[in-house]
Amino acid sequence: MPNQKIFASPQDVEAAFYEALESCDIDAMMAVWAEDEEVVCVQPGGPRLVGYTVIREAWQRVFANARKLRVRLSQQTAITTPFAMVSTVLEHISTRDDENQSAPVAATNVYVRGALGWRMVAHHASPVPPDSIGEAPRILH
Amino acid sequence: MPNQKIFASPQDVEAAFYEALESCDIDAMMAVWAEDEEVVCVQPGGPRLVGYTVIREAWQRVFANARKLRVRLSQQTAITTPFAMVSTVLEHISTRDDENQSAPVAATNVYVRGALGWRMVAHHASPVPPDSIGEAPRILH
Repeated sequence: MPNQKIFASPQDVEAAFYEALESCDIDAMMAVWAEDEEVVCVQPGGPRLVGYTVIREAWQRVFANARKLRVRLSQQTAITTPFAMVSTVLEHISTRDDENQSAPVAATNVYVRGALGWRMVAHHASPVPPDSIGEAPRILH
Repeated sequence: MPNQKIFASPQDVEAAFYEALESCDIDAMMAVWAEDEEVVCVQPGGPRLVGYTVIREAWQRVFANARKLRVRLSQQTAITTPFAMVSTVLEHISTRDDENQSAPVAATNVYVRGALGWRMVAHHASPVPPDSIGEAPRILH
């Protein structure tokens, strides 16, 4: 599976990840991920998925049930080291047909710099309890 | 608050994190965390907590309701860079009085190497759906 896109920064990877999610584009989504057996993905309410192939299958199932999504991000945090970045964010996801947002999701995203530039190595998302959102979302995306 | 313990490796931080969790020891727990405004903690089913002080308060609440826990870890993964490590694991948590395990929890833990050695910068935990556990836990801890 060709996966030759080069991302020059973790911010570029994160932008590409959420663009792929919005457009339900499996090839764009998998270009974001490191092709590694130990990459990890937890979708909201789901199990821990380990490895590039398993994660690809899971995104294919998600995208089979949705045509286009709208994702707004708020309250971003970041911790950066020379070869890795931890980003956390609240995701506000809705469908294009229905602007009503679903419950927000807290996501922890980890990006690592390798020989082929920056790639995602972990995405862990979980639903946020509705009574814990103290702040209106700042729209970043 | 003194936080002078030096951890020489991410594995040392992870061991200390789970020992502090088992013993419900707030000082040991907070010695594990980087004293940073952007550290992030998501407890199972909970909101995203940002910053050392907020995270301390949350662990104090957890520990106020439990005396001693038993934590077994299984199915660990790791991705390591020179200054950061991403570890994921399934946690099997029970109380000392009741050996029946609660539902497993998927945890993503991120450790960063700073001037004071390795520290935890992110802990994101979420319940695993009961029908998704395909493998008996390997006991690591």
